[in-house]
Parts: sequence; C-alpha cells; structure tokens
Amino acid sequence: MKNPPSLDHLIAALKVLPGVGPKSAQRMAFHLLQREQAGAEKLARALDRALSSLVHCERCNTFSETPLCNLCADSERNQSQLCVVEMPADLLMLEQARCFDGLYFVLMGRISPLEGLGPREANLDKLLLRAQDGVVEEVILATNFTAEGEVTAHMIGELLKQRGLKVSRIARGMPVGGELEHVDPGTLAQALYERRQA
Amino acid sequence: MKNPPSLDHLIAALKVLPGVGPKSAQRMAFHLLQREQAGAEKLARALDRALSSLVHCERCNTFSETPLCNLCADSERNQSQLCVVEMPADLLMLEQARCFDGLYFVLMGRISPLEGLGPREANLDKLLLRAQDGVVEEVILATNFTAEGEVTAHMIGELLKQRGLKVSRIARGMPVGGELEHVDPGTLAQALYERRQA
Repeated sequence: MKNPPSLDHLIAALKVLPGVGPKSAQRMAFHLLQREQAGAEKLARALDRALSSLVHCERCNTFSETPLCNLCADSERNQSQLCVVEMPADLLMLEQARCFDGLYFVLMGRISPLEGLGPREANLDKLLLRAQDGVVEEVILATNFTAEGEVTAHMIGELLKQRGLKVSRIARGMPVGGELEHVDPGTLAQALYERRQA
Repeated sequence: MKNPPSLDHLIAALKVLPGVGPKSAQRMAFHLLQREQAGAEKLARALDRALSSLVHCERCNTFSETPLCNLCADSERNQSQLCVVEMPADLLMLEQARCFDGLYFVLMGRISPLEGLGPREANLDKLLLRAQDGVVEEVILATNFTAEGEVTAHMIGELLKQRGLKVSRIARGMPVGGELEHVDPGTLAQALYERRQA
C-alpha cells in the first residue's frame, strides 16, 4: 500500500520550498487537497505567471516584469549613488524609509561559504560592471549586519575600493527610540565605538 | 516603489500553505525564483496533476486516482473489520506495521471545535453509511491519542454503538522497547490502569 503517484509527486515537489521537510510537505499536500483546492489552483497559476513574467532588471538585478525596473527607469533618481542590498525586501524597506533618492543594486543573495554561496551567487561580477559605469560616484553598502552580510559588505568594499570607487557602509548604533536598558550589549558597544562628535 | 504584481501574487498565493505567514511566503517566493526555477515549475505541474487526478475513494475516503482505491478493491482483505484513522499517513503507518488485514476508513480530519472542525469536516456521515453496510462487524478506532483524536474516537464510538456495531479502540500503553525510566508519566499511568492479566 502506497500513496497514489500524483500525491507522492506533490509531496516531493513541495519539499523544494525552503525549510520544508518530508513531514511538513505531507501536511501541506493534505491541507491543499482537503481544504484549499482553490488556493492550490491559484498557487499553480501564480507560479506559472511569476516564472514566465519575472526577469532580473538589467541594471539593478531586482525582480522586474520589464528589462529595466521602474526605479532604474526613473530619471529623477540620483544616478551618482548606488546602494547595495541583499534582497528586494531590503530595497522596499529603504524606500519606505524615504531617506535615499539614488539607485540600488540587489545582490539576490549574500556570500556565505557555509551555505555554499560564493561571489557568483551574490552576483558580484554584475555589481562590479554596474558600479563602474562612470556615473556612479559612491557605493553605499546596506547588506545586513549578520555575519554573512558583514562578510559580503567587506568583500564588495575591497573590490570596489581597488577600482577607485568611494565606498561607505550604513551606520551601526542605537535604534531610533531605543533605550540603553533594552538594547543588546553588542549594539550598545558598537554605538559607543562609533560615537560621533556632538 | 512596490514589488512587480506577479511577485506579489506569488507571495500571496504561498500564504495558503499551512504555517506560512507573510515573511516566510516572501522568503519562499525569492527562493523559488532565485534558486529553484525548475523546482517551482515542477511544483506547479504537481499541483495541477494532483488537483485533476485525485479523488476520494468512495469506500474509505482516502486520496485515490481511481473511484475505488487499491486497498478497498483488494478482495483478499478482511471485509468484516474496519479501522478508522484520521489521515492517509496514519493508514500507511498501520500498513507498514503489517498487523491488520481488514479495511480502513480515513476521516481526512478530526473533530476539533477549537479549529472549527465538526462532524462534517471529519466526514462522519460517510463513515456511518460505510460502517452499516451489513458486512462490517467490528470498527477499530485508531485516531490519534491527542485531545482531538480522543474526542473524535469517543464521538464515533457512541454513534456506532447506538447502531449496534462492535467498536474497539487501539490500546494505550508502553511503547515496544520502552523503558519505564524514559517514558512520560501519562503513558506510564495509562499502562498501569489498563494492565492485562499475565
């Protein structure tokens, strides 16, 4: 006695999702077939549509439905500043903060030797080409402050400085509204080391 | 600045999966588009195939590609014993244990007022019809020993006993190979209460 083949196929296919093992894949398959047939149908269509219509913006590498994304196509943005982030979600957060009117480069990854992610997975070649277009004057590194994000920022920084570009890193320190009593000691230490003259 | 619509659609569609919120849906979408395009394509096809080819077996209610599943169609199984389980995975576990040669009924759910699952979600009508076919002599309740599984077993047991059927419940007790020192107190207490004459 085994599952019908189409059920086994669905369970196997769901395991491609990050963080989904055999048990959760099975639970997801049963849930979709038993209680969410309409949702499953929508998911299949959304996958097809995303696969067929999304490309990487040829300038900033983010997901886009056009060769050049809306943001890169906007001539009112400051063309001399390029902000490097790991993922499209980071770009959206920065845009929400309304603090930057330059352009972005989205790595679509990070350098993480432990996960087998090297310079190729982080699209560093594409970034180096983009940063040396002759218009970009400053590259702002806004990768995460995780171990991987820091390694990535360091490596990009070295490569770009060798090529004569001005490179900066967004600041570490106390969060806005943060209380010393409640912030973690590492952040507090960094805020002290990187103190600015008042 | 927003995500392209097809990306937002995919993120929204992934939220239909159990236990997947906005953040993990976004992570899944990026993972599929960035590193697993082939897997995403396979997932869309597997969803389509499962939706179009799986039905509920008309006798035992499990997922099947034919109106009658292989197990129900097997005339060598003991037709007088009907074992009730919650999900197809439970049926497979019992088959792996090679301890039962009767037939099954798969509830495809459980009774769980807290989750809004009542007798209808647990397909009790279909079970009552199935159990009263005149051939079934004993119904063995093999729902989980969780609170919901116990409630489900109790309710089914009452309904079937009212209809004159013999009903049994699989035993609680010490696991095979289990050591008293390492088993949980609840299981140990049940094993003591339900002790059998040696």
